[in-house]
Amino acid sequence: MKDKKLFLSKAQKNFPELYYRDIKPDVTEFFASTGDSFLLDLGEHAVGHFSFAFDNADDFIDAPIRLIIKFGEDMREIEDDFSAYEEGLSKTWLQEEIINLDFPQKTTMPRRYACRYIKITVDKTNKPVRLFDFCFRASTSADVSVLEPAKTADALLNKIDIVATNTLKECMQTFFEDGPKRDRRLWTGDLRLEALTNYYTFKNLEITKRCLYLFAAGNCDKLGFLPSYVYETPYYFSGSAHIADYALLFVVSVCDYYEHTGDTAVINDLMQICKSQLESFRKILDENLIVTHQEGWFAFIDWCPELEKLTALQGVYLYTLERFSELLKAIGDEEHKKYSLHLSEVRHACKKHLYDEKANAFINKLDNGQFSVHSQVWMILGGVINGREAEELLVSCLDSKDAKQSVTPYMRHYVTEALFKLNLKDEAVQYLKKFWGGMLEQGADTFWEAYIPENLDFSPYDNRVINSLCHAWSCTPSYFIRKYGL
Amino acid sequence: MKDKKLFLSKAQKNFPELYYRDIKPDVTEFFASTGDSFLLDLGEHAVGHFSFAFDNADDFIDAPIRLIIKFGEDMREIEDDFSAYEEGLSKTWLQEEIINLDFPQKTTMPRRYACRYIKITVDKTNKPVRLFDFCFRASTSADVSVLEPAKTADALLNKIDIVATNTLKECMQTFFEDGPKRDRRLWTGDLRLEALTNYYTFKNLEITKRCLYLFAAGNCDKLGFLPSYVYETPYYFSGSAHIADYALLFVVSVCDYYEHTGDTAVINDLMQICKSQLESFRKILDENLIVTHQEGWFAFIDWCPELEKLTALQGVYLYTLERFSELLKAIGDEEHKKYSLHLSEVRHACKKHLYDEKANAFINKLDNGQFSVHSQVWMILGGVINGREAEELLVSCLDSKDAKQSVTPYMRHYVTEALFKLNLKDEAVQYLKKFWGGMLEQGADTFWEAYIPENLDFSPYDNRVINSLCHAWSCTPSYFIRKYGL
Repeated sequence: MKDKKLFLSKAQKNFPELYYRDIKPDVTEFFASTGDSFLLDLGEHAVGHFSFAFDNADDFIDAPIRLIIKFGEDMREIEDDFSAYEEGLSKTWLQEEIINLDFPQKTTMPRRYACRYIKITVDKTNKPVRLFDFCFRASTSADVSVLEPAKTADALLNKIDIVATNTLKECMQTFFEDGPKRDRRLWTGDLRLEALTNYYTFKNLEITKRCLYLFAAGNCDKLGFLPSYVYETPYYFSGSAHIADYALLFVVSVCDYYEHTGDTAVINDLMQICKSQLESFRKILDENLIVTHQEGWFAFIDWCPELEKLTALQGVYLYTLERFSELLKAIGDEEHKKYSLHLSEVRHACKKHLYDEKANAFINKLDNGQFSVHSQVWMILGGVINGREAEELLVSCLDSKDAKQSVTPYMRHYVTEALFKLNLKDEAVQYLKKFWGGMLEQGADTFWEAYIPENLDFSPYDNRVINSLCHAWSCTPSYFIRKYGL
Repeated sequence: MKDKKLFLSKAQKNFPELYYRDIKPDVTEFFASTGDSFLLDLGEHAVGHFSFAFDNADDFIDAPIRLIIKFGEDMREIEDDFSAYEEGLSKTWLQEEIINLDFPQKTTMPRRYACRYIKITVDKTNKPVRLFDFCFRASTSADVSVLEPAKTADALLNKIDIVATNTLKECMQTFFEDGPKRDRRLWTGDLRLEALTNYYTFKNLEITKRCLYLFAAGNCDKLGFLPSYVYETPYYFSGSAHIADYALLFVVSVCDYYEHTGDTAVINDLMQICKSQLESFRKILDENLIVTHQEGWFAFIDWCPELEKLTALQGVYLYTLERFSELLKAIGDEEHKKYSLHLSEVRHACKKHLYDEKANAFINKLDNGQFSVHSQVWMILGGVINGREAEELLVSCLDSKDAKQSVTPYMRHYVTEALFKLNLKDEAVQYLKKFWGGMLEQGADTFWEAYIPENLDFSPYDNRVINSLCHAWSCTPSYFIRKYGL
């Protein structure tokens, strides 16, 4: 408890400054009667607060006016009928308000929205009105003045970089949000990818430190895993999900932080929690060192429907063990040997128990014989296979119609990382261009939460309208482009 | 124009102080899930702003919550389905909001409401929530500390007095509003009755002066009549209706003001406007000195359906002439003789042209032979008939099923005034008790805009839900009770 209070206070000390900017849409005024509607285009995706004024046109309005104000991250969202939304995730995420205004006034709407387009419908007015003075006050904790352009000669990669950094910028508020339209929480999986891209772009170390401490202050579950998400507004609240791969990625995020800062003070604060995450995972391995199934929502990996996740999860464990033992070695902690030895044992166990020699792939009973990109990628990232063997497996599974494929940019990040790990740079760039470039072709101003080129209506939930079109975990092209000098 | 600016500046100098009071409803907290609703009872009618807080009950709410918050002046309004409202007056007057709140917070709703009951429905929440800290911040410019209790021994009259002063108090904001729920404007007809009652109750002379100047600053129509209403929020705006009886009642209001204050400075400011109202009316009389029909909404008198109004309007003219010539005499203006002479001529003309000797009533061609309480009352208030003849006519028409009867407390005020004028004190008290006491029996906390004992669903518009249940023009029982020491 003492540590938790300390961690929270350190999180608060690293509260990032917010930068505000007033965006004026393309329309400056509009005269309207009952039933009229008009569209404002901010010209870019923005996160913030909307204000406007209205006044009588000729005669006094005589009665309050009622407006319906809809915010869309893209035009499809504007055109969608929200009232048709059948619930899965809460309908309250759909950005639409009905407001009554008693008399001419300037109004700042109290909620924060994420949008490029704003549609205002005059649902009822007794007399014509004039609407004007539209302003969207955008906020971000990303300091755009420190962002250098990507040094790529490739026009498409340059465009992808711009949209990717913009995606990150929009999600950087008082913490790393997963999506500024929907969810608006700090998730470990998103944090890891946001922090990674941030090291190469906005270089805001405060927000990264803050987020690491926010997780460190969380309540672990009975297995010992950190919460997978936390809330910070209006007060700190530790989330109720404890996903094993996300608990591991917290450890990876700490390793990333050290790699990019050399800041041992933070590492010392978080060391015990990192070790306990790995120890907790160790306890759910069977006698063969293979992860066992657990109750509830236990692994995330990707939103791919019907995905079997245990092999991939085992790969995340290996990936984390490798990074963590490197960290220990770098800071002179002799325990690195113990983790390194264990890593080697688990890798052998994976090759022995999870690899199908006939199929030349990680297809096994653990995942009911399912063949997935996810298993192959994470076993490769976990170092179970390498070289030519790994290259052939990875390239072939990405082309395979029989393999479960990634549906989120989150999982596609790890696919790309695996391609780079195997020095398949051309394939990595091709993959990046295909998926992130594909969103660009669809007019994306920011990268999406989920994207399947053949199915633009895909949603991890129940309906496309609830999807987030600016989602943190899709910002990593800038990391790849800048890290590898593409 | 110069005068108008001066009048507006005098109106602003007399901006009344507002008194605020926090009312806590009977419920202090409520735990709710999706679909739950609960009722708050303020225990009294109030005008002001509502605030409340909400928080997580156990787990974090996970998504914004959506509340539907409905304000009712009585329980019927709470139970009515607003979505069924077919428009006549704007549906935006119906006091219901749909609000989305992103995270636990204290919220003050931006609009002002008039209500006793507040129903909160949790339209959607992902997790149970706790709502609490309910507060209604009531405002009025009536200083309740100066209000003395009515000195009546009659329990019912005492109750009527309490509700009547409460009605006035609720309508006294930054000006004399007609109804704090709906319309919220300064109407001349309401001003006159509010000011009259105010002299005997809260004695706020500032607000009265302010309202007189607000009208004086208005734009007259081509006939020369003042606007019948003005707006003052967020800026001054002269209304587009110019009803002749209301223009005359402005003059009466000035006379009342002098009678109760002796303030000649205000009278001097407004004298020219008063004279011009009477001159304008003079111009629409025919060669027999009888008023002629004019285009548009030309006379109000009452909301009684299909009422013919010209005889009553002629009576308002006489009533005004009498009061105005008295004022001129009191301040030593010799023109009083001119007005007095004209009054006498018009009275004669009315008896000659508008009175049916066979029917012993004011039934005439001018009103297509219609028999109404309104015509009789205003001819009596105008002094066309007096004494026994008038008494018999008034008493009989109030009991007549053939006569058009009053439907608003506004017109009933003038019926009561006519009864007092004829010294029919018992009948006046009986009339007061029947109509205002009738509303009390229906549970009124404030008196209504319209009331017909046999038809509680009556509305001057299209639907009872749009009626105002706290309407300024129904506050005058306190004037009668206190003036006549009932």
